[in-house]
Amino acid sequence: MRTTWGWQADHAGTPFRQVPLERRDLRPDDIAVRVGYCGVCHSDLHAFTTARSPLVPGHEFTGVVTETGPEVTRFAAGDPVAVGNIVDSCGVCPMCVRGQENFCHEFPTLTYGGTDRRDGSTTLGGYSREYVVRDRFAYALPAGLDPAAAAPLMCAGITVWEPLRALGAGPGTRVAVAGLGGLGHLAVKLAVALGAETTVLSRSADKTRDAHRLGAHDLVVSTDDRQLAAARDRFDIVIDTIAVAHDVGPYLKLVAPDGTLSRLGHLGPMTVETFDLLPGRKKLSSGGSGGRPATAELLEFCARHGVAADVEVLPSARVNEALDRLGRNDVRYRFVLDLSDLPAEVSRPAGSRTA
Amino acid sequence: MRTTWGWQADHAGTPFRQVPLERRDLRPDDIAVRVGYCGVCHSDLHAFTTARSPLVPGHEFTGVVTETGPEVTRFAAGDPVAVGNIVDSCGVCPMCVRGQENFCHEFPTLTYGGTDRRDGSTTLGGYSREYVVRDRFAYALPAGLDPAAAAPLMCAGITVWEPLRALGAGPGTRVAVAGLGGLGHLAVKLAVALGAETTVLSRSADKTRDAHRLGAHDLVVSTDDRQLAAARDRFDIVIDTIAVAHDVGPYLKLVAPDGTLSRLGHLGPMTVETFDLLPGRKKLSSGGSGGRPATAELLEFCARHGVAADVEVLPSARVNEALDRLGRNDVRYRFVLDLSDLPAEVSRPAGSRTA
Repeated sequence: MRTTWGWQADHAGTPFRQVPLERRDLRPDDIAVRVGYCGVCHSDLHAFTTARSPLVPGHEFTGVVTETGPEVTRFAAGDPVAVGNIVDSCGVCPMCVRGQENFCHEFPTLTYGGTDRRDGSTTLGGYSREYVVRDRFAYALPAGLDPAAAAPLMCAGITVWEPLRALGAGPGTRVAVAGLGGLGHLAVKLAVALGAETTVLSRSADKTRDAHRLGAHDLVVSTDDRQLAAARDRFDIVIDTIAVAHDVGPYLKLVAPDGTLSRLGHLGPMTVETFDLLPGRKKLSSGGSGGRPATAELLEFCARHGVAADVEVLPSARVNEALDRLGRNDVRYRFVLDLSDLPAEVSRPAGSRTA
Repeated sequence: MRTTWGWQADHAGTPFRQVPLERRDLRPDDIAVRVGYCGVCHSDLHAFTTARSPLVPGHEFTGVVTETGPEVTRFAAGDPVAVGNIVDSCGVCPMCVRGQENFCHEFPTLTYGGTDRRDGSTTLGGYSREYVVRDRFAYALPAGLDPAAAAPLMCAGITVWEPLRALGAGPGTRVAVAGLGGLGHLAVKLAVALGAETTVLSRSADKTRDAHRLGAHDLVVSTDDRQLAAARDRFDIVIDTIAVAHDVGPYLKLVAPDGTLSRLGHLGPMTVETFDLLPGRKKLSSGGSGGRPATAELLEFCARHGVAADVEVLPSARVNEALDRLGRNDVRYRFVLDLSDLPAEVSRPAGSRTA
């Protein structure tokens, strides 16, 4: 085993504290990554408030390869890489075969709180100085992408990218984004970069300036019945990133005939009135995370179009403050922890290939 | 006013009895139709069991034009026509403009139990010998379509046709149909005629022979976990015509990535687990009835491909038996009332143009 340092909550709601963590010795197809930056996802907050055992969150991070297993050919020590919220999958089911490892029939192995497919251990996330990951689930970080601002692409970004691509967002389509948080602000930037006419749906007009700064062409105030009525049937795609349970009915009214509302911000049951779907044959969909091809495509697209998250970078020692403020929606638009304040030294077996 | 004869239930559950009905005098754009055959729709049964005022159901019928208003140019006395469940709409909203009168923003006027847009009267349906309808909402019945078997195309048929067309059913797509009743059996026939690989989903293998007779290529027993598991992610389109509230989760599992389940058989709220939609970005949709262009297209398609409903024709005097048996699912697959047993004579104002 190797040891490193990370931030752990012992159970729900107890403050994160710096602890030594064990990482597995490198398997033949593993790489070790020195984590530079790790985004703070809303699901980290959810995991933190519901944890029943020690928790090390973090599933959108960037860093540098420090070691590689003997079978690894795609990466070498020193390469900048990014890792998202999936670190393994069965590899043989129809979903894996079509490059949708996020929908693996055996359920993908999650970056934290998951169960390693080979040794059965519980995975510990990227709020740490080192992560050991199967090379298939690390991605080359293209030159030109800021490693802090790129980290949230790996969960927030890919979660909105897959539906935008699958639903055909691009020139001639009209996209609306509800919820201007971590997912939402990236959905706006990506939809704009894809060429779609892009509108922010917000509970107040306060975010108008922000919406335009992100590239949105319009903002519709979702608490204004007149604005809602005027926007009825207007959008081919509505990306709903609202992070709490809510009635999707008012948002479905804004979907164009044969268009789709993609519900991404909240898991759990949804109740929908047939009469909100029926007129216009509107579709309700969901999604989450992404497969390997789409993730690689997203990183290339973002490098080419200069898209990354708007982030507030905090030293990782301020992780408790980050989660507290995230819980109050006090962030524009994503906290990213800078892990360089953790001790650099990690112990590892003698004789391994190092940078 | 004109008078004719029809079948009326005075309120919920009381037997239908033959009564004289009033029809409006022809407006300039009206036609009078002598009703020949009227299908018995599941919504007729629902209306019958919940009626709080006198009810004359019937919204899928064929007949012959007997009179035309002075502005009518599309029809002449003697023409065979078909009428569905919409008899008027605002005509100017975006949905009407795009030929989706079924989704009219002011809600379309229903063929029975609706409110006439001009005089405010409650519409009385096609369980009657004569119907007076705005010419825009009557359709030429193509030669070669049997008028009894064609009647159910006007509600059951168009309700499944619009989603099949909008979702792209055709060669190279895989369609599954759940619920082999009035809607379902037409969905099978239409999907097959469109060239889709078509599968029936049934609670038992009893319907295998029927499914093949309708043209289906396969039947999956939805109560057999092994068959369900083997059919996971298999169908681009699942047409769910099951007429009662049920969990759509097991059917969503059969939908292919980026495919759609179209829920058509039952109105009311649906609760769906996000985790049933998420893997594969599956879509949940609905629909009902059809716009004028799609309805005309359906009739032409059915005439060209020899598609019509499998019907059991009963003299209209046996309407109570038909509804009773429909409530017990004892029909393959649609009852059609033959209205010729009602008195032929109708009274009408002198001087009107007649056949």
